[in-house]
Amino acid sequence: VTFYTELKVRFSETDAQGVAHHASYLDWLEIARIDYLARFGGGYPALREQGVDATTLEAYVKYLLPARFDDPLRISARCGEVRGARFRFDYVIERDGERIAEGWTTHACVDSKTLRPTRVPDWLVTAIKDAESAG
Amino acid sequence: VTFYTELKVRFSETDAQGVAHHASYLDWLEIARIDYLARFGGGYPALREQGVDATTLEAYVKYLLPARFDDPLRISARCGEVRGARFRFDYVIERDGERIAEGWTTHACVDSKTLRPTRVPDWLVTAIKDAESAG
Amino acid sequence: VTFYTELKVRFSETDAQGVAHHASYLDWLEIARIDYLARFGGGYPALREQGVDATTLEAYVKYLLPARFDDPLRISARCGEVRGARFRFDYVIERDGERIAEGWTTHACVDSKTLRPTRVPDWLVTAIKDAESAG
Amino acid sequence: VTFYTELKVRFSETDAQGVAHHASYLDWLEIARIDYLARFGGGYPALREQGVDATTLEAYVKYLLPARFDDPLRISARCGEVRGARFRFDYVIERDGERIAEGWTTHACVDSKTLRPTRVPDWLVTAIKDAESAG
Repeated sequence: VTFYTELKVRFSETDAQGVAHHASYLDWLEIARIDYLARFGGGYPALREQGVDATTLEAYVKYLLPARFDDPLRISARCGEVRGARFRFDYVIERDGERIAEGWTTHACVDSKTLRPTRVPDWLVTAIKDAESAG
Repeated sequence: VTFYTELKVRFSETDAQGVAHHASYLDWLEIARIDYLARFGGGYPALREQGVDATTLEAYVKYLLPARFDDPLRISARCGEVRGARFRFDYVIERDGERIAEGWTTHACVDSKTLRPTRVPDWLVTAIKDAESAG
Repeated sequence: VTFYTELKVRFSETDAQGVAHHASYLDWLEIARIDYLARFGGGYPALREQGVDATTLEAYVKYLLPARFDDPLRISARCGEVRGARFRFDYVIERDGERIAEGWTTHACVDSKTLRPTRVPDWLVTAIKDAESAG
Repeated sequence: VTFYTELKVRFSETDAQGVAHHASYLDWLEIARIDYLARFGGGYPALREQGVDATTLEAYVKYLLPARFDDPLRISARCGEVRGARFRFDYVIERDGERIAEGWTTHACVDSKTLRPTRVPDWLVTAIKDAESAG
């Protein structure tokens, strides 16, 4: 069972080509990632309150078909690797069952104040592994 | 002499109507405001380092003609009122000498930590008054 | 009964003050406006397919309290005036029942191709009047 | 001689981590790409007027160091491959000579109306090859 989140393309996310601007996809992946984490112990807001933040190290998107204003999108997210301070998400964006984009991002947990790398909290590592192995 | 700043409409700022999205104008007014303040004692970044931040209380834009991708825009800014913690900016956006939008924003200086209102620093009030009276 | 739409503040909508950037509010008002119209005959997408588009003439926002990442917001929208080509929306943004912003926008219907003003379609005027008088 | 374009991080591009949001980088790469093309026969606006548009197929960014509000950035761009309808750009983003990010994007030329792939115009292929071999 893959986790997914749903949203509609906003008008403000379109561009003069009449389709969703390619940078909007990174916002959508972030929304899926935050929704994914929200199931575990308060999610990203809780992490931030505990002094742990996450930075993005890399982002990759492959655009297969254009998305248009008001299109209903389903963004599937999997967290495939958690090692030390680092973790990786893989995504698929679909519209009515048709894959329109895919991508992945890598991240590092950092101390909110020093911005130095810090291990992904154990409880989160365990929660993610349990969630993914149940998939 | 009115202060102005110049920019070009980015492709990411356009929408599916083929023109600049109306929310982009608030970003442009902010750029003009920050450029305006940059002439005085380090500007907005310096203010923030001194523990003073500015929040936006109101924003108004009147859209007269559409702006398109790559259009060169000139944004004039005046700071017309500075009273206590509050100040107001008035703007005109022109393209090749033709007015395409106008607007105004009101702001309050706040303490960066408490977010409570704090007077606009005296040196900034004086600098703005001198600049505007020289106009 | 006032119409409303709900959303959560996205991380990408925050700024370095730690709150939602003031330009994001215009995107939210647009989302509320589009959701409002979606109840009537296919809404804004249908209007566009019929060759009628809507442009924004003015936008005003009053910021009362900051909105933060992940805050659940309720945006109420009323369409108070429809005259000829023009119409106006009034909005209230609340978080947990507390008003954090309010605003209004004015718009004109235009022909999609010529971008010249065209009357708001009769069926839409009637639908809006019925909806608002039922309120 | 590598082509580059310069910009400053806008306040609206920052997020609640106090740094530039990772999606903003795609806007910056697009600005560099459009500036790069602007040197040749009218650039991207001219291409669009000739009925040729360009879509983004892939985008990749590697984030090395955070960018902050008002940071002056230099974005170098190279167009390394032009084959049939496709072309690729490679980028480096620097602040004061320090590399803070790098990335690449791939694109396809399409017919503006049909959105079907169309060869990169010969004059543009030649202009790019001349520019890059002079580097």
